[in-house]
Amino acid sequence: MNIEKYPSRLLENAVNEFSKLPGIGRKSALRLVLHLLRRDKEEVTAFGESLIQLRSEIRHCKVCHNISDSDVCQICSSPSRNNSVICVVENIRDVMLFENTHQYNGLYHVLGGIISPMDGIGPNELEIGSLIERSESEDIVEIILALPTTMEGDTTNFYIFRKLKDKPVKVTTLARGVAVGDDLEYTDEITLGRSLTNRVLYESSVGK
Amino acid sequence: MNIEKYPSRLLENAVNEFSKLPGIGRKSALRLVLHLLRRDKEEVTAFGESLIQLRSEIRHCKVCHNISDSDVCQICSSPSRNNSVICVVENIRDVMLFENTHQYNGLYHVLGGIISPMDGIGPNELEIGSLIERSESEDIVEIILALPTTMEGDTTNFYIFRKLKDKPVKVTTLARGVAVGDDLEYTDEITLGRSLTNRVLYESSVGK
Repeated sequence: MNIEKYPSRLLENAVNEFSKLPGIGRKSALRLVLHLLRRDKEEVTAFGESLIQLRSEIRHCKVCHNISDSDVCQICSSPSRNNSVICVVENIRDVMLFENTHQYNGLYHVLGGIISPMDGIGPNELEIGSLIERSESEDIVEIILALPTTMEGDTTNFYIFRKLKDKPVKVTTLARGVAVGDDLEYTDEITLGRSLTNRVLYESSVGK
Repeated sequence: MNIEKYPSRLLENAVNEFSKLPGIGRKSALRLVLHLLRRDKEEVTAFGESLIQLRSEIRHCKVCHNISDSDVCQICSSPSRNNSVICVVENIRDVMLFENTHQYNGLYHVLGGIISPMDGIGPNELEIGSLIERSESEDIVEIILALPTTMEGDTTNFYIFRKLKDKPVKVTTLARGVAVGDDLEYTDEITLGRSLTNRVLYESSVGK
């Protein structure tokens, strides 16, 4: 029951673009586009330009690979952050989640994914090499592995742990307050904050 | 539990814009924006430009007020359409719904809403005057009232019927195959097509 006949090529284009987004079908896309048609021209132009700017101007911090408006992100360049601790996360969304707990004052390292052979993602596709370099060149005392508690997350944890084993750095992981198999995004802030406070040595977390 | 700290002003802008859309909260907006960040720059630019073009270049047909890429829309200017029948609808979405039934070959008239005193919409805010003009100046034999079967739709139907009563034009309305109180958008195409085929004289539809 698709709506296939559009009275305007411009309308059809916009519907096509919206329906490429995850979770938005053609009917929802049409509804959003009709909504935009009722809005002021300036507002819709601002929306369109925000998307073009987003993708063309946004940069990644050259230290932690979080997204940033400058070469080095606000967190990495802040003098008030504890720069002896690095929290390793899968993506930039997770950085925001941890920042929201207000219980962490260290730095981050965004891997850009986790090891997933099924999706063709190996260690070389991720920012693991640069993490190892940071652990060597900076005064890092502790590296917190904060990856999802899934099989892929565990695999990635273990891979990084082995790479760091002989370096003079403490490797910790989130307390298992996070339910196994759960996505970090759906964990409430208190649990997430506590799992960060109660982080344990990686070795003890895998039962050795 | 909002995600309030954004690592980038550009990211925050884009999230703000998406969350202004109906049915999209801040978490969904962030998810959509992060999805766009993973897409090619050209694709995202095309998306942004399609929105800007949509709002700045789209026009309304000066005859039927449907949206159009030109002064007069494809339907009004088509020589193969029956230009003695006008189907009166609330908005452009409804035009698409009727076109999809493939059971109608006449013209349309888009009111741009229905009479709703609660929302401050009276007859003067709608394209009713131009409908009356069309019924006078063109060779119109029949006007089909295809408004929602709600109280506001019934009110608007009755208002238009009274205006057209003394003109030499047959006023019909959709067969009540459409469930009373239902939105046209959620009616299946077969029911919608049948309700168009079995349309009845407005007078008999109100039980006179």
